[in-house]
Amino acid sequence: MANQQEDKEEEKPNKWATKSWKYISSLRQESPLIQCITNYVSMDIMANTLLAAGASPAMVHSILEIPDFTPHTQSLLINIGTLTPDWLPAMKAAAGVANKMGKPWVLDPAAVGASSFRLDACLELIQLKPCVIRGNGSEIICLDLASIGSTKGADSLHESSDAIEAAKSLAKSSGSIVAISGSVDYVTDGERVVGAHNGVPMMQKITASGCAVTALIAAFVAIDPTNVFEATTSALSVFGLAGEIGMAMAKGPASLRMHLIDSLHGLDQDTVLHRVNIQSFP
Amino acid sequence: MANQQEDKEEEKPNKWATKSWKYISSLRQESPLIQCITNYVSMDIMANTLLAAGASPAMVHSILEIPDFTPHTQSLLINIGTLTPDWLPAMKAAAGVANKMGKPWVLDPAAVGASSFRLDACLELIQLKPCVIRGNGSEIICLDLASIGSTKGADSLHESSDAIEAAKSLAKSSGSIVAISGSVDYVTDGERVVGAHNGVPMMQKITASGCAVTALIAAFVAIDPTNVFEATTSALSVFGLAGEIGMAMAKGPASLRMHLIDSLHGLDQDTVLHRVNIQSFP
Amino acid sequence: MANQQEDKEEEKPNKWATKSWKYISSLRQESPLIQCITNYVSMDIMANTLLAAGASPAMVHSILEIPDFTPHTQSLLINIGTLTPDWLPAMKAAAGVANKMGKPWVLDPAAVGASSFRLDACLELIQLKPCVIRGNGSEIICLDLASIGSTKGADSLHESSDAIEAAKSLAKSSGSIVAISGSVDYVTDGERVVGAHNGVPMMQKITASGCAVTALIAAFVAIDPTNVFEATTSALSVFGLAGEIGMAMAKGPASLRMHLIDSLHGLDQDTVLHRVNIQSFP
Repeated sequence: MANQQEDKEEEKPNKWATKSWKYISSLRQESPLIQCITNYVSMDIMANTLLAAGASPAMVHSILEIPDFTPHTQSLLINIGTLTPDWLPAMKAAAGVANKMGKPWVLDPAAVGASSFRLDACLELIQLKPCVIRGNGSEIICLDLASIGSTKGADSLHESSDAIEAAKSLAKSSGSIVAISGSVDYVTDGERVVGAHNGVPMMQKITASGCAVTALIAAFVAIDPTNVFEATTSALSVFGLAGEIGMAMAKGPASLRMHLIDSLHGLDQDTVLHRVNIQSFP
Repeated sequence: MANQQEDKEEEKPNKWATKSWKYISSLRQESPLIQCITNYVSMDIMANTLLAAGASPAMVHSILEIPDFTPHTQSLLINIGTLTPDWLPAMKAAAGVANKMGKPWVLDPAAVGASSFRLDACLELIQLKPCVIRGNGSEIICLDLASIGSTKGADSLHESSDAIEAAKSLAKSSGSIVAISGSVDYVTDGERVVGAHNGVPMMQKITASGCAVTALIAAFVAIDPTNVFEATTSALSVFGLAGEIGMAMAKGPASLRMHLIDSLHGLDQDTVLHRVNIQSFP
Repeated sequence: MANQQEDKEEEKPNKWATKSWKYISSLRQESPLIQCITNYVSMDIMANTLLAAGASPAMVHSILEIPDFTPHTQSLLINIGTLTPDWLPAMKAAAGVANKMGKPWVLDPAAVGASSFRLDACLELIQLKPCVIRGNGSEIICLDLASIGSTKGADSLHESSDAIEAAKSLAKSSGSIVAISGSVDYVTDGERVVGAHNGVPMMQKITASGCAVTALIAAFVAIDPTNVFEATTSALSVFGLAGEIGMAMAKGPASLRMHLIDSLHGLDQDTVLHRVNIQSFP
């Protein structure tokens, strides 16, 4: 009965908006250190997204630095977008340190369906218990099936809604919160599913915008590591909201990228409270 | 006689403009998957240029992924801008797969004159039959002479027009279409030479704008692999036109970069038909 | 007496502004070739900053290319921001060639406090006599103490003014000019200290803006290798001034980045003479 009551409250957009604002405020105040082991393409937009949001990004990926550096971070982001075999040991070592120290870490299986090498790497990383896995529809389906081919490079062949069952299944098998990006972003723990409805289609024309939002999830999770589901959903919605505000000024994908980051930096309480749009699914 | 007739029609700017628009439309509809093995500096602007133009970029460079991934791509771009020896085998493997599958691939010999290592790598790659080689004047001269020293890092010491004979000679020896970027971009198959007159000087102040246009050539070639000469020339002109439109809004090289990408995304038929400026040389 | 006279003149902002303008003009005319061995995150903004300022950047880091390429450069920038062990030999080789040829080279100890690996690498590089070391407060303190821990990833835990004594000590022990970035940028040769007061706080929200200014220092030093102290201070002030002008148009960190680079490209004599703000400390 109490649980049902709580579930109902979860459905009020206002509660989510209030949470989202709380995360943003805390991020700006605490400025957590987020280690990013990510692909070359995304480094610039990812670091700028984290800085704009209030976090302190650190692109540190040498395996020699993991023992000294990872213990001092508040969370860890691993993205396999331009993976080569020499990067994998550092990823595993960092995830291992994060686990040992009780720090959250987040996995972005970028273009996981591109090759068996990439898929195998992701499946190994998932064994190391990321608290969140965020991908597009094709990536989540590929991971759930543990089979390549249902993807097209970095872009998705599937609507996010097509991947909800795969996401639930992956969440159950992995123990991770699974987020699917798309026209609506869905987040699931294997049982409940919530949709973050903020965002604009043109964000898919910004290279590595998906990578950037996964890093933002890592930052939100650093703020509230015991409520990963809420932090993940809020991050997706806040990033989408920054995209909506940016879109009002944009003339194309490059100016949208700029205005999105500016808007993320400038988000105010009133806008967040009124425009964060998170709803239970279905 | 028929041939001469055709040659004359080639000289009507309108025919080129019509072709260019056809390429843009097809690119937006078909969204071909373009594999880019490129330098670190260019990855962001290259991927964003391809996305803005309608293509689907994939920065995949691990040799382990070539067998799984390259067969699914529509074309391949190889750029040696920040080459180290460990990247070369993947470049060769990818070019080999492209050749075997009958997929076009395009070479950007970025800063080839900087070292013997870079020159030798390029000469080896040219053996693998790129359908297009695009460089600035100094790079094309360096390749034709097979000798370093006639370059200044990534920037050209030569006008594009200074390199026309070198380009013709390189086209004949390599079998590739050769494109020279500069205040006018020239394209040759060894016999005929065409000039793409779109563009603005400030584009040379945008890092990796040359790399980006080579990737756009790869995308246009993916659309029409049997007319590489036409696709190459059109891509150069369209990119230059996006620069012209962007320049009207720009206050410097950084805003030009943004407006160029926005303009590429927003190009409409009327603008392309009236402003693409391609002419036979001399 | 003569010396005191000269010192007093140094304190007139006008003299510094005149020098700064002279450096900018020369940079635009001579367009020196600057080799950058830098971290992945900074490559795009660094190359664009150098191009906008009038220099010719070259991101060349393979050890195989050092013997051919480095002798043709006017100065060298080494930044350890995403260091892995395989990059260090090329850094050392390039610094060695620069020394042998009498070319200036500049060190950016990015996030040096993140690990012993990074600190050791920096200490080894300092043995190779960079003419300038530029870092934030935490980085300079860390280098002076030769001990990690007083840093937070790429961001500083210290005000630049907190690091002045450490900078003087480091300058004396290393023989390098030491620059500390912060709300005021300080430059010291171990004895005198000068403050470059241009800049706006939001520049710290632009990823790799510190890396970019170190590259700009390398470009200024290339113009006047016998007056490293003056060139360094001027570069810091000019970059800060571009930030001030950019800030007047910016709506957040991403648009500031764009406007800063545009402004650097467009700086005119009148603005430089009136707004460069360099003062002796204390």
